Amino acid sequence: MKKINVAIIGASGYTGLELIKILIQHPHFNITYIATTEGGTKASELHPALLGVFEQEVFKADAKEVAQKAELAFLALPHKAAMGFAKELLGLHVKVVDLSADYRLELEAYEKHYCEHEDKEHLKEAVYGLPEINTEKIKKARLVANPGCYPTASILGILPFLAYLNKEAPIFIDAKSGVSGAGKKPSTTAHFVSINENIFAYNPLKHRHEPEIAEKLRLFSGHNFEVNFVPHLLPVSRGMLISSYVQTTEMIDAKAVLTVFYAQSPFVRIRENPVDIKSTAGTNFCDIFVSQKGKSIFISSSIDNLLRGASSQAVVNANLMCGLDERTGIPIIAYVP
Amino acid sequence: MKKINVAIIGASGYTGLELIKILIQHPHFNITYIATTEGGTKASELHPALLGVFEQEVFKADAKEVAQKAELAFLALPHKAAMGFAKELLGLHVKVVDLSADYRLELEAYEKHYCEHEDKEHLKEAVYGLPEINTEKIKKARLVANPGCYPTASILGILPFLAYLNKEAPIFIDAKSGVSGAGKKPSTTAHFVSINENIFAYNPLKHRHEPEIAEKLRLFSGHNFEVNFVPHLLPVSRGMLISSYVQTTEMIDAKAVLTVFYAQSPFVRIRENPVDIKSTAGTNFCDIFVSQKGKSIFISSSIDNLLRGASSQAVVNANLMCGLDERTGIPIIAYVP
Amino acid sequence: MKKINVAIIGASGYTGLELIKILIQHPHFNITYIATTEGGTKASELHPALLGVFEQEVFKADAKEVAQKAELAFLALPHKAAMGFAKELLGLHVKVVDLSADYRLELEAYEKHYCEHEDKEHLKEAVYGLPEINTEKIKKARLVANPGCYPTASILGILPFLAYLNKEAPIFIDAKSGVSGAGKKPSTTAHFVSINENIFAYNPLKHRHEPEIAEKLRLFSGHNFEVNFVPHLLPVSRGMLISSYVQTTEMIDAKAVLTVFYAQSPFVRIRENPVDIKSTAGTNFCDIFVSQKGKSIFISSSIDNLLRGASSQAVVNANLMCGLDERTGIPIIAYVP
Amino acid sequence: MKKINVAIIGASGYTGLELIKILIQHPHFNITYIATTEGGTKASELHPALLGVFEQEVFKADAKEVAQKAELAFLALPHKAAMGFAKELLGLHVKVVDLSADYRLELEAYEKHYCEHEDKEHLKEAVYGLPEINTEKIKKARLVANPGCYPTASILGILPFLAYLNKEAPIFIDAKSGVSGAGKKPSTTAHFVSINENIFAYNPLKHRHEPEIAEKLRLFSGHNFEVNFVPHLLPVSRGMLISSYVQTTEMIDAKAVLTVFYAQSPFVRIRENPVDIKSTAGTNFCDIFVSQKGKSIFISSSIDNLLRGASSQAVVNANLMCGLDERTGIPIIAYVP
Repeated sequence: MKKINVAIIGASGYTGLELIKILIQHPHFNITYIATTEGGTKASELHPALLGVFEQEVFKADAKEVAQKAELAFLALPHKAAMGFAKELLGLHVKVVDLSADYRLELEAYEKHYCEHEDKEHLKEAVYGLPEINTEKIKKARLVANPGCYPTASILGILPFLAYLNKEAPIFIDAKSGVSGAGKKPSTTAHFVSINENIFAYNPLKHRHEPEIAEKLRLFSGHNFEVNFVPHLLPVSRGMLISSYVQTTEMIDAKAVLTVFYAQSPFVRIRENPVDIKSTAGTNFCDIFVSQKGKSIFISSSIDNLLRGASSQAVVNANLMCGLDERTGIPIIAYVP
Repeated sequence: MKKINVAIIGASGYTGLELIKILIQHPHFNITYIATTEGGTKASELHPALLGVFEQEVFKADAKEVAQKAELAFLALPHKAAMGFAKELLGLHVKVVDLSADYRLELEAYEKHYCEHEDKEHLKEAVYGLPEINTEKIKKARLVANPGCYPTASILGILPFLAYLNKEAPIFIDAKSGVSGAGKKPSTTAHFVSINENIFAYNPLKHRHEPEIAEKLRLFSGHNFEVNFVPHLLPVSRGMLISSYVQTTEMIDAKAVLTVFYAQSPFVRIRENPVDIKSTAGTNFCDIFVSQKGKSIFISSSIDNLLRGASSQAVVNANLMCGLDERTGIPIIAYVP
Repeated sequence: MKKINVAIIGASGYTGLELIKILIQHPHFNITYIATTEGGTKASELHPALLGVFEQEVFKADAKEVAQKAELAFLALPHKAAMGFAKELLGLHVKVVDLSADYRLELEAYEKHYCEHEDKEHLKEAVYGLPEINTEKIKKARLVANPGCYPTASILGILPFLAYLNKEAPIFIDAKSGVSGAGKKPSTTAHFVSINENIFAYNPLKHRHEPEIAEKLRLFSGHNFEVNFVPHLLPVSRGMLISSYVQTTEMIDAKAVLTVFYAQSPFVRIRENPVDIKSTAGTNFCDIFVSQKGKSIFISSSIDNLLRGASSQAVVNANLMCGLDERTGIPIIAYVP
Repeated sequence: MKKINVAIIGASGYTGLELIKILIQHPHFNITYIATTEGGTKASELHPALLGVFEQEVFKADAKEVAQKAELAFLALPHKAAMGFAKELLGLHVKVVDLSADYRLELEAYEKHYCEHEDKEHLKEAVYGLPEINTEKIKKARLVANPGCYPTASILGILPFLAYLNKEAPIFIDAKSGVSGAGKKPSTTAHFVSINENIFAYNPLKHRHEPEIAEKLRLFSGHNFEVNFVPHLLPVSRGMLISSYVQTTEMIDAKAVLTVFYAQSPFVRIRENPVDIKSTAGTNFCDIFVSQKGKSIFISSSIDNLLRGASSQAVVNANLMCGLDERTGIPIIAYVP
């Protein structure tokens, strides 16, 4: 089969590195262009672990060059920077998987929680890249908004139960993330001594992934649930655990509901025991466990925040957009132990 | 002031060590007897960090010897073993602070969740040793049941809001504990490789601290709230963070409610920012932060699971039982950084 | 190309898991038999992360069944158990890569440091499976003794300098290992609370890998160097860093010596900056850095203790024994970040 | 006894916090002045763990104010800033314990490894504050240079053996430090993801503590030993382990030498088993273990890098300078577990 040329824009961060790691082992994608905002370096200088493995030159990001070299581009840029670049690429007929928040939300919500939107036109056609839900739309999309890490794991856990939920009751989501989710930039918060032997909530009830979760649950269910989302930082590099607390109107068999819902989903695993983050770290899996007491349901979902929460999900989306089987080249073997 | 002689029964575990650490610096208590189930060793052999600091002999636990040497005994024994020993000590007129679960619950609840109770007589007089609530009762008690670690932090967080809560809505408690809470005994769960870079729930909706929390909230409020409690194990040695999610009937000023409630409590600190576990590790403090969105309230409370969750709270109780100021000799300086 | 059938004996530990992870992605090896001492389970029960990925049945180890199903067997058994099984397999014409210590040492040294040898006959033909040195011998071997983790990283670091070393001066090796090197079995030492926020030497100057290192350095150099080896346990799951301190007779250009020595070695990377363990974790690489001050040389080498120190090196050996390119199916992309 | 007023200059970092923690519990010292470079804050804002414990105002550092309020000042400032301030304080008859490197080295060595010295006059009278060696000098000093963390643990380990060492053989020191030693300032190196699950050497054979160790060993022994020092960063917040490798001319009983040497030292503990860093974390102890093989000696020494390596050693020095018993108010109870 002919190789499909792809570009990575924004290669210096953790998600850029994960994209490189997946794509150099992918049987059908071929990385023909890598860029950062500054350029003038090599992949193995940005990421020393790549020495002797992948030493490709890294350019200053240029949309026209992308268009000459690749059919599809992964954007691992900060929000705002991403939409500027995506707009240009789409105009040059390059497909885009955007890992930023720029095309995830409806216009009003986006502008409320982020900034003015600079590519309203393409925003309308963007498809929310959660493959379990939007497979068919993703296949036809030329612009996919890759979901946030917290929304991916939260939505996958809650989705099967939406039809059974008490519409008056709020949904509580207690999220725990590894520090890589906060990016590579040094900060007091990310300092080893701040994180090690510690845990704390941040932006409780105010994190920008809360409206993303709420919007998607509303779009999927037709009901505007109250979503209360509290993220915590864990003394862990990689991994994300979501504990969701919901209430149903009637007694249900929660395990059966979950199992049926994901019977055809290759990247969701239903667990008999509470999930951990080590069993998904390194993979695109979302592991889910459910427990119940009367009408109160506890859902525990686990993903790798950099893979299922970003880069491997992006490649699943790219697979679908390019007519490949969604599983092609997607990591499924965990880093454990 | 005359020294008060005290005994530690069950000195080999983490809470035994913490009792030693506090009591050797306490201005009025004097450790005159230390015991384990086996005896025949020294404190600095059980806990090598005590070499050159505290090398007292450790005996095979014997109630009569305790009675000869001490006025008050701390029992850091497993449940069931504790009540056998407490019964004997009380008969010999020794005051008891029991760190196990044996005297925490009403009879029926205890026997449902633990085992048959072997000291029903004293169970009736036991006082639940949460000093913020039961100060006066503790002062007169000769048997105090030291609260569990999860209940301590959960109850202290939720208590101020009980009067405002929607009685139909369940309370959700998402708890995170350091591994020392699971004890010193080697196990697959406590293996470094199982815990490091990992997090997972255990006994979700089934942990034995759930009925303890529910019972105390009922006794304090007069209403039988539905309590859903899910503990998680953190890759951390020491510390506990409790995220509680509750709903009020009316809009309240949660911060003000909290501040007023604890205005006179020397060991509760109200925080402007989300609490972390490092700021309480090494101390008897319970730090509490509250955030709200409409009628949904997020309460974040942090304690040192071995101190406020066990040993330092036990010494506060002992202080009260012996007519001392509750703050005497209680650690308030955190281990941070 | 035709698939080569292989067996894994001893699949329950960490190295067994790593063998499975490599072999299910290997383009030419086909796992046809997996066993433990007890059998009667599935791979995904032994290692829950394999759920949905690899669920093959796990048998009670039986040499005859191995011989029917596989051409080559990986033995991930404890020493002593390994030689019993290897002897039987070799008699049935199955090639063996033994990950235990049983065939690593000369007879006398083995019996001094381990136990009586029960397969003296095959010991004579066993090849020490350090591919950088013994490539040609490994290609012809039917029994390869996979090196220990500490010896692999220590020898690879020191080897290039042997010809230049002061024969009167001792070699000092300060080794640091992740806890997975100590195995999966619960113990006080491996308890999270013992390891976390801690570091300590163990078996200093007495570890059984010391004679292995000394013997191999003697065999390669013809001189019996004094080797002083001190291993430490790190609060890390995976990874190994070796700091070797040696003295040369003359001033040399240490970096140049190193670079020339490994010019043709695909799995050794020479680093400009001190090596870390994250850049090799997940790979078969040995990264080496060297620094010098006069005739004193500091060599820092890093490997993944479970891969280059065990399972991936075992598969490199199997590749060579089966006529494949040594790089076939060997992991080179690190787990970082 | 009358309280002695002391000042802390440089209260924002980790060592400043540790000074506060020790001094607020000290029976004879009274903190009357706290300052940072910027001032205008409170101790509990710099260090939130101090909320409700110690809320003293923090001023912009001013030498005249110090002189009015305190007899002795602890300087926890960066090198260069420290000597400017110390000079002024000494002129105002304030005793100084300087935690920086400014008065630790002889002039030539200082200027080679740091910068031009701006207080050459006082440099001559400064006493190196290692109490095990310089007790009498410290008692009479008005300026004490508090030793570096690595030198403290290295020198204490090697000192007892100096008389027995082979003068031709280099000393190798393999040091491992918790990240707090690198300070509070955010950096790529100190980022949680860089440190966690990792270890690496830094500045091997080039660290500025190497000449400090070499100079002190020369001054104590009269011989200029070759010292090769390689520090490593550990995934640990607090603690330091030093592995020293030395060679003697004759066979000695290393354990006996060590034991005799420190028979009168209240803050050195000789261990039967390899030392760990948890048993000294939180204390002023230096724990030492020694092992030998012929004339090769392995010395393992452990300290708390922030306490024995900085702040508690500074208070021991202040005790001596003020005529107090050196043990007064010095922490000896470890943070373990």
